Amino acid sequence: MDKTVLNKIARSEGVSVEYLQESIRSGETVVPLNIKRRKIKKPTAIGKGLKTKVNANIGSSPDQVDVGYELEKLKVALEVGTDTVMDLSTGGDLYNIRKAILKECSVPLGTVPIYQACVDVVKFKHKSIVEMSVDELFNAIEKHCEDGVDFITVHCGVTLESVERLREQGRLTDVVSRGGTFLIEWMVYNKKENPLYEYYDRLLDIAKEYEVTLSLGDGLRPGSLADATDRPQIQELIVIGELVDRARERGVQAMVEGPGHIPLNEVATNVMLEKKLCRNAPFYVLGPLVTDVAPGYDHITAAIGGASAAAYGTDFLCYVTPSEHLSLPTVEDVREGVVAMRIAAHAGDIAKGIANSDRWDRKMSNFRKHLKWDKMIKTAIDPKKAKEIRDRNPSKSGDVCTMCGEYCAIKHIGDIFKKPRR
Amino acid sequence: MDKTVLNKIARSEGVSVEYLQESIRSGETVVPLNIKRRKIKKPTAIGKGLKTKVNANIGSSPDQVDVGYELEKLKVALEVGTDTVMDLSTGGDLYNIRKAILKECSVPLGTVPIYQACVDVVKFKHKSIVEMSVDELFNAIEKHCEDGVDFITVHCGVTLESVERLREQGRLTDVVSRGGTFLIEWMVYNKKENPLYEYYDRLLDIAKEYEVTLSLGDGLRPGSLADATDRPQIQELIVIGELVDRARERGVQAMVEGPGHIPLNEVATNVMLEKKLCRNAPFYVLGPLVTDVAPGYDHITAAIGGASAAAYGTDFLCYVTPSEHLSLPTVEDVREGVVAMRIAAHAGDIAKGIANSDRWDRKMSNFRKHLKWDKMIKTAIDPKKAKEIRDRNPSKSGDVCTMCGEYCAIKHIGDIFKKPRR
Repeated sequence: MDKTVLNKIARSEGVSVEYLQESIRSGETVVPLNIKRRKIKKPTAIGKGLKTKVNANIGSSPDQVDVGYELEKLKVALEVGTDTVMDLSTGGDLYNIRKAILKECSVPLGTVPIYQACVDVVKFKHKSIVEMSVDELFNAIEKHCEDGVDFITVHCGVTLESVERLREQGRLTDVVSRGGTFLIEWMVYNKKENPLYEYYDRLLDIAKEYEVTLSLGDGLRPGSLADATDRPQIQELIVIGELVDRARERGVQAMVEGPGHIPLNEVATNVMLEKKLCRNAPFYVLGPLVTDVAPGYDHITAAIGGASAAAYGTDFLCYVTPSEHLSLPTVEDVREGVVAMRIAAHAGDIAKGIANSDRWDRKMSNFRKHLKWDKMIKTAIDPKKAKEIRDRNPSKSGDVCTMCGEYCAIKHIGDIFKKPRR
Repeated sequence: MDKTVLNKIARSEGVSVEYLQESIRSGETVVPLNIKRRKIKKPTAIGKGLKTKVNANIGSSPDQVDVGYELEKLKVALEVGTDTVMDLSTGGDLYNIRKAILKECSVPLGTVPIYQACVDVVKFKHKSIVEMSVDELFNAIEKHCEDGVDFITVHCGVTLESVERLREQGRLTDVVSRGGTFLIEWMVYNKKENPLYEYYDRLLDIAKEYEVTLSLGDGLRPGSLADATDRPQIQELIVIGELVDRARERGVQAMVEGPGHIPLNEVATNVMLEKKLCRNAPFYVLGPLVTDVAPGYDHITAAIGGASAAAYGTDFLCYVTPSEHLSLPTVEDVREGVVAMRIAAHAGDIAKGIANSDRWDRKMSNFRKHLKWDKMIKTAIDPKKAKEIRDRNPSKSGDVCTMCGEYCAIKHIGDIFKKPRR
């Protein structure tokens, strides 16, 4: 691992370079960074004892292709502090969209190369997804790595064995992972094993060459609370655990993706299982969403699950936007989604005892106690939004707010308690 | 307890009337309902084994007095399913605002009568808050009960003893409860015990007469994570526990208010402590907020804490709006706040195993599996918001959405797995 990068990360985390090196060596921490991208402004590490990281998904869809708009999303996601970005484009010229995003992306960028493989096969070769060749799949993976992508989602754990268990299970929402679905269609049609599993060594070779981190995707993640923590999901996790071992043996960094839709009382179990079955590989969850009933507010549903997951030891949270389950997100959705998940990550960090994570809160509360409004706003997780709300409706009574006006508790209690805080 | 009311509640909760009666008798459940309001459309019960309830605060402030606008907030809060409302007005003609809200309020209404007492003293008698007489305080309480208020927050646990412990503690944010602050100012200035504690029997008499439920307020609740679960907070909770006993002996229903700002890893302890120290009285928490750093997004911060609190056994969640710590909320804030907290309550209900609480999720996911968009939207926690997002940007590919378009996983996976769910 590049020393300059490690120093930079160690400084921003407040840990020693030695701690970081040892944790990367053991596989408990990953630094997703393509060999071609060592100069990016904000490299990051994901793993044990480090701050919980947040990912923002952007990208086109068949219905909506506008590179400029996706770059706006990227800009906003970075502005409100996302730690990584994934380009999940499936519409338009994927190569040029990715190139444009990579150019502007100052944090690690992830992709799901099977999307590219499928779109190429369907749009340019006018074949069906099930007619994709193994080489076409691996060529897409290699292309992404060559382009400079820092981490790739690969659904290697969707095996014939786990698909059989899925068939036996009888789920409410079967499969909701796009990559997982493409692979299952392919496997069922061709009556063959998942190529990402069968030729896993080929995948490791590519990842090794470009120092790309594998994000072992959970193609069988539950798409509803009813399907959470079931046999296919855990079967896939066992297989993924085995693949983590093989990645480590080959010197390839790997993290593990998790659900999805999980009731709040099953979050701890899911985190514990991943840590045990995958020998403490960094855990990267999508939300999780703790209820299915809130389309329009799934950034909040995900923040609830994400905070709990982080508190129990999850290392990396993928944001969910208010548009989830309804539409491709807008720029404003991206903003809301990143901030919601950053709140979850930070609440989780305080709960799991990440060193100095509560300093930010103390700083804010100290400004609050002294009614220093400008400093409160500057310290807020999203100063722009805080300022908007404050300015919308200022109080006539000066240094208070319109919630209580002259009856402001902080102003009234004033200096009755002068004793300094211990 | 009125039999018609009990039947109505038992039906909506899916429990037996006998269960409800026994739980009310033991004090583990309360039904906040003024003797004058038995005919309201949606009475509710708060307590053990029942769905977690949500409260929305509305009301004027010295800076913003507009009865019409507060009634709009009420309307929206009811539309998105709040279980109770509190009128926390401190500006304008409190009596007429309360009257107007009571008239339109189809759910139990709570107030904090000390606000009225203080405003009367300051605005109409041109005295200082510390010059308020004990009679003036109790007259305000009696007036609210006479008007038909269903539950009142009374900060009876702010005693000379707990204030002394507060002084010794040395807090970061001292006191952030308005009612608590008024009482402490009064106690320190007059060198006298809190009248709500000293004359608690007088309070019980009034509550008894109108069958008003006491919400024993936590005047010393922490206003920052740094002050959470400290000696003054727990001292006050011990005193409140004793007052719960006395309320039960007198046949007055009582619930207990809780924080406030609490790190996620201290939420379980706070719920457990309340249940133990207050002999399982219903617990009513404000959020809690799991970080101090997110003004503008405190509805999300509160939803994270609220879901966890509910999962551990909290019965009643007070919403927080995006404007918290910045401004009096707008109508739109009220909507966001109620929905966020309803998500938290529902996630908590599933986690703590409230009977049939996951039916709603199964219904939604079943519609999702079959891409029945109209039914998904109708089933959503806020159909209006879900529809807005879906309609903003419909897919050209028909029955999918613009997130994945033709690559919709649900559409692709289709009927590969025909085995019915078990």
